[in-house]
Amino acid sequence: MAASSSAVAASASASAQALAVSTHCSPSSSHSHRLALPGGDALRSLVGRSLTSSPSALRFLRMRQPVFRSRRAGPARAAAVETLEAAATDALVEKSVNTIRFLAIDAVEKANSGHPGLPMGCAPMGHILYDEVMKYIPKNPYWFNRDRFVLSAGHGCMLHYALLHLAGYDSVKIEDIKEFRQWGSRTPGHPENFETPGIEVTTGPLGQGVANAVGLALAEKHLAARFNKPDNEIVDHYTYVILGDGCQMEGISNEACSLAGHWGLGKLIAFYDDNHISIDGDTEIAFTEDVMARFEALGWHTIWVKNGNNGYDDIRAAIKEAKAVKDKPTLIKVTTTIGYGSPNKANTYSVHGSALGAKEVDATRQNLGWPYEPFHVPEEVKSHWSCHVPEGASFEAEWNAKFAEYEKKYKEDAAQLKGIISGELPAGWETALPTYTSESPADATRNLSQQCLNALAKVLPGFLGGSADLASSNMTLLKTFGDFQKGTPEERNVRFGVREHGMGAICNGIALHSPGLLPYCATFFVFTDYMRAAMRISALSEARVIYVMTHDSIGLGEDGPTHQPIEHLISFRAMPNILMLRPADGNETAGAYKVAVLNKKRPSVLALSRQKLPQLAGTSAEGVEKGGYIISDNSSGNRPDLIFMGTGSELEIAAKAADELRKEGKTVRVVSLVSWELFDEQSDEYKESVFPASVTARISIEAGTTLGWEKFVGSKGKAIGIDRFGASAPAGRIYKEFGITAENIIATARSL
Amino acid sequence: MAASSSAVAASASASAQALAVSTHCSPSSSHSHRLALPGGDALRSLVGRSLTSSPSALRFLRMRQPVFRSRRAGPARAAAVETLEAAATDALVEKSVNTIRFLAIDAVEKANSGHPGLPMGCAPMGHILYDEVMKYIPKNPYWFNRDRFVLSAGHGCMLHYALLHLAGYDSVKIEDIKEFRQWGSRTPGHPENFETPGIEVTTGPLGQGVANAVGLALAEKHLAARFNKPDNEIVDHYTYVILGDGCQMEGISNEACSLAGHWGLGKLIAFYDDNHISIDGDTEIAFTEDVMARFEALGWHTIWVKNGNNGYDDIRAAIKEAKAVKDKPTLIKVTTTIGYGSPNKANTYSVHGSALGAKEVDATRQNLGWPYEPFHVPEEVKSHWSCHVPEGASFEAEWNAKFAEYEKKYKEDAAQLKGIISGELPAGWETALPTYTSESPADATRNLSQQCLNALAKVLPGFLGGSADLASSNMTLLKTFGDFQKGTPEERNVRFGVREHGMGAICNGIALHSPGLLPYCATFFVFTDYMRAAMRISALSEARVIYVMTHDSIGLGEDGPTHQPIEHLISFRAMPNILMLRPADGNETAGAYKVAVLNKKRPSVLALSRQKLPQLAGTSAEGVEKGGYIISDNSSGNRPDLIFMGTGSELEIAAKAADELRKEGKTVRVVSLVSWELFDEQSDEYKESVFPASVTARISIEAGTTLGWEKFVGSKGKAIGIDRFGASAPAGRIYKEFGITAENIIATARSL
Repeated sequence: MAASSSAVAASASASAQALAVSTHCSPSSSHSHRLALPGGDALRSLVGRSLTSSPSALRFLRMRQPVFRSRRAGPARAAAVETLEAAATDALVEKSVNTIRFLAIDAVEKANSGHPGLPMGCAPMGHILYDEVMKYIPKNPYWFNRDRFVLSAGHGCMLHYALLHLAGYDSVKIEDIKEFRQWGSRTPGHPENFETPGIEVTTGPLGQGVANAVGLALAEKHLAARFNKPDNEIVDHYTYVILGDGCQMEGISNEACSLAGHWGLGKLIAFYDDNHISIDGDTEIAFTEDVMARFEALGWHTIWVKNGNNGYDDIRAAIKEAKAVKDKPTLIKVTTTIGYGSPNKANTYSVHGSALGAKEVDATRQNLGWPYEPFHVPEEVKSHWSCHVPEGASFEAEWNAKFAEYEKKYKEDAAQLKGIISGELPAGWETALPTYTSESPADATRNLSQQCLNALAKVLPGFLGGSADLASSNMTLLKTFGDFQKGTPEERNVRFGVREHGMGAICNGIALHSPGLLPYCATFFVFTDYMRAAMRISALSEARVIYVMTHDSIGLGEDGPTHQPIEHLISFRAMPNILMLRPADGNETAGAYKVAVLNKKRPSVLALSRQKLPQLAGTSAEGVEKGGYIISDNSSGNRPDLIFMGTGSELEIAAKAADELRKEGKTVRVVSLVSWELFDEQSDEYKESVFPASVTARISIEAGTTLGWEKFVGSKGKAIGIDRFGASAPAGRIYKEFGITAENIIATARSL
Repeated sequence: MAASSSAVAASASASAQALAVSTHCSPSSSHSHRLALPGGDALRSLVGRSLTSSPSALRFLRMRQPVFRSRRAGPARAAAVETLEAAATDALVEKSVNTIRFLAIDAVEKANSGHPGLPMGCAPMGHILYDEVMKYIPKNPYWFNRDRFVLSAGHGCMLHYALLHLAGYDSVKIEDIKEFRQWGSRTPGHPENFETPGIEVTTGPLGQGVANAVGLALAEKHLAARFNKPDNEIVDHYTYVILGDGCQMEGISNEACSLAGHWGLGKLIAFYDDNHISIDGDTEIAFTEDVMARFEALGWHTIWVKNGNNGYDDIRAAIKEAKAVKDKPTLIKVTTTIGYGSPNKANTYSVHGSALGAKEVDATRQNLGWPYEPFHVPEEVKSHWSCHVPEGASFEAEWNAKFAEYEKKYKEDAAQLKGIISGELPAGWETALPTYTSESPADATRNLSQQCLNALAKVLPGFLGGSADLASSNMTLLKTFGDFQKGTPEERNVRFGVREHGMGAICNGIALHSPGLLPYCATFFVFTDYMRAAMRISALSEARVIYVMTHDSIGLGEDGPTHQPIEHLISFRAMPNILMLRPADGNETAGAYKVAVLNKKRPSVLALSRQKLPQLAGTSAEGVEKGGYIISDNSSGNRPDLIFMGTGSELEIAAKAADELRKEGKTVRVVSLVSWELFDEQSDEYKESVFPASVTARISIEAGTTLGWEKFVGSKGKAIGIDRFGASAPAGRIYKEFGITAENIIATARSL
């Protein structure tokens, strides 16, 4: 009777601390198994009180509920008691589930826009996760050791908003739900981590979320392997994700889930909302594969919950089973009815992405026995959920105590882990980056990049990453670390296989796991086309991912036009909140990495050469931080005859052409425009000091599309570039044939 | 003995026609089963001649070989004869296979660049396909009814070039092979259909090829269902594809293969080159899923050939089995050794993508018993392959005769099929496109697009397509047709599911199947990010695919920034050989479709609005063909005070602002810039007539990034646009908050 009496004690004191130490409101608590069962009479009297139901009585009952709700009762329990208790609890759960459903219905109805179908079908699993299973702290949404939840089927975001609201997150008050999909609200049309604390990642574009979840689970496994000690498991959380048929059809999900299986991410638990409906109708018209068999082939454990609409116990049992399988991720297929409860629209595509309409909302209220006004949360439901705030406080206190112990015993590890949790950079980290002089040997920027990667890995504890099967071409191996694998998750070289899209989204998950995790990933620059959707989400969701993109132009030579980027530089320059950096040599490469690390809320794309480039005089890391700067100039008074500008491998060519013309007595300025975005952010004065308005004889050179360069060369200048696809031939020949040469700059200069 | 004697007769006459009618050199011929077996003595004497081997004797033997090489001999055959015959044949096959290997080795060695590993491992399956199985016409590479072959692992292109060379294609002479990967050669670093007749599609970016193959097989199934008659199967070919581990890892291949299984593409046969090596090393490091089980889950038939290096008969048997399975595509996993034959580099990643080096080339020659000079094709191998040209001629004659019969009996169908084969547009097709006046009701361009799609489907026999599960949002359903499905392949609405990337690549396959096939595909414009790699290959490979991209801006409203394109317009304007069209109303939408259909070697992207737009005065289909044109102007002498320009949904706003300022006495020109690419192609005179150099007061407005607009507004003009991510709110509110309004144009105009 130890636990039982401590529960009573907790009720009496009602302090968060006491609550936590005695019995959590969630059965996921490691304490729940310690609960012994009270005798029949004592329990009956508790139940009696709960049914007469003052809020405090409910909370009191609540403190006892985990055992019953999760049906983990031992065999000693009296069957009659169980039945009575369960009936009371089930009614409350049903009410909570219907609250979630109607918050979604009402919000979509008010906005006259949104997706009620998924929340109505997935409310039961959502309820169980947030009310019974997950560890989180509503008042500290960024608590490091929280369980992560991702709604990969992001259109159903009202499910998540409703859950956050019930759980007590300040980010989603009832007023926020009433402002669903309105200007400036914290409840946008798809989940956005940067708008709403409690949302882990930004989803909506299908398949991204489940791949993010793989990244979150990877991060946990990696950090746990690095930091946990036999006596102190300081890192220990699950990652849950709900994905729908749409996510399943997307190739990115297969990529990421194949890796999750390969890595054996046992603490990743995915719920597949199997509702047989997609926008175009029954999934029969386009999706008849055997999903469970596919996941088994990918190395997952699979479970099928056949009745996701009411089968609460089956969902609970599935989660229990999933947790017991420690060496594989688990897919729980939960068969649900989209729009469950709507008498005329359930199980049709019409409930997927539109408001039900007033008439059908009424019919659904009738059908589900919901007499309340829109946006109403019944008192008993409120009360039922109210323990999550104190429970969260107890999690926090408990974990803080654990960390204090950890810090005492494992000082160095604790310092590293702190850095990962806070995102604070170690003092002087940037001095680790290499520097070069113009006498340093010529080298490809991909090789110089490798020097930077290895330097950063030494000083940044959260630095890890890899390539999509091109490590030896992208030059991305960290030499002092081994491979992150199922058996060696403490290592930092991640082998993504040929899965660019999954790689990008997994890195988003890693970056958004903890502020101090800094993932990089690599492929050929042209194959950003495969992962652009994930990169855009890096930018939108403010995930600091470093995209190491080598073979950045026709300079890669013989592989030909399928491998040669042309339009890629401008396509990223045009994307909001992402830095496109194209360094020209060693100092600029180091500068690019410095910028990438410092921009904590912005991903960076580094375009790097396959071919050797000389170390140029005048380049600098400081210059890179300004985005555009003068590397050489023989004029005075800010009035050169000519301004040449370029980036990356073509800056050398501009410098050469300038040298030639200077010999003829011309004054020529050479500008490196390594990052247009950073240059745009400089003051007007600085910009004028680089590009004086009075100098209109300007020539740009870049082995990419000329479109966009009008911005800098102006209407009287000239852009030298490539406005066609590339060609298969040795690089030097292509450069010559395409006119990306000093001779062409000189000829063009004479024509101006 | 009928077949046997006709073979002798053929040898005597040596005419192509006789060869074909008697016995094909390929066992894929439908005639091969008619072959009876000669008696032991006669055969032995033939074999004796073949081994003493004058070329004509070899050809003579060759004509008899299919039976033995494919081991389809009936039980009546004498076992002793079979052994002797088989040994002789196997030696020749081995020699042919080694020829392929060394052509690849030598070409890569000479170029000092390329991928020898795959051709060395896959030469056996390549040999069997091109020498024994496939129907093709070397002198008419575009023969409609040919079997299609796609090397999805495109880096191994020397395999394909070697096969085309041996088979007698004029596009790959031995000089071409010696020019592998050189400027202007027909043997570029990856297979490019636009450079090399005999190459069906452009591959290299992994996973694209297998998805293209799904498109090719879809096209065959569709055309066969529409045009074949019980007495005349005028459409009847297989699609073969070789894909490697890299292709398997890419999400796009899972998307496309899931659809292939769903559609039951029984004539699609994929060879999975299972060599356990990818660039980063053993596939164990990143790819441990059960591929066969995954494909079974996707609805494929699977076969495993365990010895792909020498197991010729197993490969043959697998193909036979695959052909017998008519309701499912087949994956034949062929376990091979990458770089087979290289004593020190086989089975390592070092043989994947680099020349072997002189020493290892020598060692490989030694190891495989290859005494020949580089690029040598032994006479008996030449002779062995020489029958494919006459065989091809016979295929052509046979099929032409079949078609003549078809045409007689099924006149209308024949005319349609001819159009599909030739790509010739039916006279007057364009009159089917709708026209509008400024009195026509306002409508979303996505709806106007649907009118065009339905109009075109009526007049273009090769018009088909669909959406990635957004048909009811993209408005892409063809109302007079049903769904293309396993049981109804004659229909034209293709249901791609939520698989944008696979959709794009499948459409590339359809478009490149026959010049008159015109696929369209659809999703939200922002999700071009998911399929950009396929779209780039449309552009590069000159595949006329129409990309119907709706919800083209913040105008989609509440779904928010994950769904709102910002940088997408410029990112396609910068891509070579693709038309980015953003029509403003009905006439421009119709014009955009006209342009899309007429540009036979260029894909088009149509950006279409979700929201209603008025029919503007002054717009026209003819204007669209020029890319940019004046829709209204109250000035004279080509000197307006102001030029406003815009595209799509913002053209209306520019027109409104102009109307306002005209009331104040200003002269204002309004220009629609519906397609920058088409405008760029106009004469300087025309351009000056639209944008006179003397008028610098120019304002552009577009609900997308301003980057790029400098090109038209010049350094004194101003671009109104959106250089941040969008927001979730009703569309009108976002337009207002972002300043995409007539008021903002007017204010800006006053500031100029």
